[in-house]
Amino acid sequence: MLKGKILIAQGGGPTAVINQSLAGAVLEARKHHGVEAVYGAMHGVNGIINENFVDLTQETCVNLEAVAATPCSALGSTRDKPDLAYTREIFKVLQAHDIQTFFYIGGNDSSDTLRILNDEAQKAGTDLNLIHIPKTIDNDLMINDHTPGFPSAAKFVSNAFAGVNQDNRALPGVYIGVVMGRHAGFLTAASALGRIHDDDGPHLIYLPERNFDPRKFTRDVQKTYDRLGRCIVAVSEGIHDQSGQPVITSLAKTVETDAHGNVQLSGTGALADLLCDAVRDNSSISRVRGDTFGYLQRSFLGCVSDVDQREAREVGERAVQFVAAGHSIGSVTIHRSGRYSASYQLSPLEAVAGKTKVMADAFINASGTGITDAFVDYLSPLLGSGHPSTHRLQAPLVKKILKA
Amino acid sequence: MLKGKILIAQGGGPTAVINQSLAGAVLEARKHHGVEAVYGAMHGVNGIINENFVDLTQETCVNLEAVAATPCSALGSTRDKPDLAYTREIFKVLQAHDIQTFFYIGGNDSSDTLRILNDEAQKAGTDLNLIHIPKTIDNDLMINDHTPGFPSAAKFVSNAFAGVNQDNRALPGVYIGVVMGRHAGFLTAASALGRIHDDDGPHLIYLPERNFDPRKFTRDVQKTYDRLGRCIVAVSEGIHDQSGQPVITSLAKTVETDAHGNVQLSGTGALADLLCDAVRDNSSISRVRGDTFGYLQRSFLGCVSDVDQREAREVGERAVQFVAAGHSIGSVTIHRSGRYSASYQLSPLEAVAGKTKVMADAFINASGTGITDAFVDYLSPLLGSGHPSTHRLQAPLVKKILKA
Repeated sequence: MLKGKILIAQGGGPTAVINQSLAGAVLEARKHHGVEAVYGAMHGVNGIINENFVDLTQETCVNLEAVAATPCSALGSTRDKPDLAYTREIFKVLQAHDIQTFFYIGGNDSSDTLRILNDEAQKAGTDLNLIHIPKTIDNDLMINDHTPGFPSAAKFVSNAFAGVNQDNRALPGVYIGVVMGRHAGFLTAASALGRIHDDDGPHLIYLPERNFDPRKFTRDVQKTYDRLGRCIVAVSEGIHDQSGQPVITSLAKTVETDAHGNVQLSGTGALADLLCDAVRDNSSISRVRGDTFGYLQRSFLGCVSDVDQREAREVGERAVQFVAAGHSIGSVTIHRSGRYSASYQLSPLEAVAGKTKVMADAFINASGTGITDAFVDYLSPLLGSGHPSTHRLQAPLVKKILKA
Repeated sequence: MLKGKILIAQGGGPTAVINQSLAGAVLEARKHHGVEAVYGAMHGVNGIINENFVDLTQETCVNLEAVAATPCSALGSTRDKPDLAYTREIFKVLQAHDIQTFFYIGGNDSSDTLRILNDEAQKAGTDLNLIHIPKTIDNDLMINDHTPGFPSAAKFVSNAFAGVNQDNRALPGVYIGVVMGRHAGFLTAASALGRIHDDDGPHLIYLPERNFDPRKFTRDVQKTYDRLGRCIVAVSEGIHDQSGQPVITSLAKTVETDAHGNVQLSGTGALADLLCDAVRDNSSISRVRGDTFGYLQRSFLGCVSDVDQREAREVGERAVQFVAAGHSIGSVTIHRSGRYSASYQLSPLEAVAGKTKVMADAFINASGTGITDAFVDYLSPLLGSGHPSTHRLQAPLVKKILKA
């Protein structure tokens, strides 16, 4: 039942539409008569253990809508990954504030936090509604057809490579763009969605779903360059060798690890520079450039998929409606039918928590350096309307006179 | 007089609106009865000496409009900087094809090419109309209030930093974004245009117009971090020490130089990584991230200023109209009046050619680490309509219970 006090928080990396889910849940919750207050925890679970709450019952609808259209977690986020002691702190605070429902907008770590919290609540014999609202630009949540935040980030990556393709046609050379994605290559694969002509780039796509061989990489680049006089490469930051060792660790001076013990892959241009050096050292190609898309792809203002906006709003609304309909625990998941319609279910937390989905084999081509039409069909409807296109001159050549 | 054959070419780095100038010139030229054909040279002056021309008289208006809305040089570009022998080759080809008017869309190098070409034409006693059409994201052309291409790139930088600011508020730390600009800091300064609240980033802006001191830089960052718990820095790729030595050359393994003998500053993440290391090594701040905006800012699909689009179209149209009105040589320049109207003049090539404009002192604050309101007033109208904004939650804090 939806009553008493509700808490909502945002965890993990921000997305372009995560505040749509916040607004969707808050505005829907405020419609229900039994609801006493809707609190927001600042900086995810960290805000809970420190009792840093704001009273979202005192937000105007106008401002909630304005915030919904603003990228990145308006409540702030956290990389804290609660252990048992941390979870008990959370539980204590929820009880002290008499909070009966907690919505956590986040990725698989956030859903895992809810799973542990539920164990605590059950041991204590307390009724606590715990609903996970999905988001992640990585698109790596199980059960979900896709996740809110991914389509907008994919649109950024697609638009970026479509522009880079024009740039690289104008001033030919090798261009290597490094895209976020530790285990799942969905976002890197999105680089292909802006291709129109047969020779449009990216011409090579390296995903973490396949092992990366630097020697084969430079051969692939040389082959494309010989054929087209240019070569655009999209690379996932998480590419690794056969042993699973990230390609970046062989280079990075400062290897930073996060709270989960993972090597820091983002916020450095080292991988792009390493790959550029590999091409320069093993080929005769002189113009080699590397870009690292870094944080831009998850926060850039004004690049959002309207389909993504709507769905992010809906998972927030549906989370509240599931509790109102009598559910008390689970993860809101997105499902696809036809071309294209989305629907929402409440799935068991265990099915989503702490797991990672990667790209299906059917989405990756046989050589492991590109994507299939099946992936284009999968992603296209998610990018929404108003997707810009690129056009070429069609004019015929003029007959040479001096060099005829 | 506008008659006979017309040639048009694009030089230097592509911009988001350079094809507007192409379409503007071609469509306007095709209206004039004396005009026999409009040729396009592929890849700038390189296409001229190799006689790689396309017949733009055989482009549909529909496709020219579609190309106009596509970023980056549709005719291709070049970094070739003609010397006297090269210029004589150009002259020979222009004569062989009986070309009477040449429009070159480009930056100050392109206008310098026209200046040398004019010397050749005068020596040969040939009538040749030579008109420079301005473009550069660097905004560094003399005489011009601003240059086509800059406002759209500035919009990208502004939107990127406005998003990064939200991201950095959600997950606080130090963020360093490196922006293109060798001598002129206009594009880096544009990072400030998305700021709304007093504590919005970028908090520090380092421009090539001021000398860069690494020790002062890390002190500045620490001071901001101590005050706000976070710090966003915008840095121009061209920052240099007191002796004029680029900061990047002290680090780069492979220092590439272009045809002009300039050190390659773009297409590597090295400067951002160097600055991040400097902060890590000289402070206790753990979360330090760097991004290099690289090529994205000049080619990204779907981020364009409508004011920039219109003006880029107009400089192309006006170039043709100046010749039709009897002018034979010069550079089309943009001038501002009021708040805000643009007008166009034909200025002497010598006033623009081979020179570089940098930011006025009035645009840079006293400490040299930020911009003034005068710069905001200068840039704001150029960004055009539909500029997205960011919004914050306004909800009051909830009283703590356990930690009261």
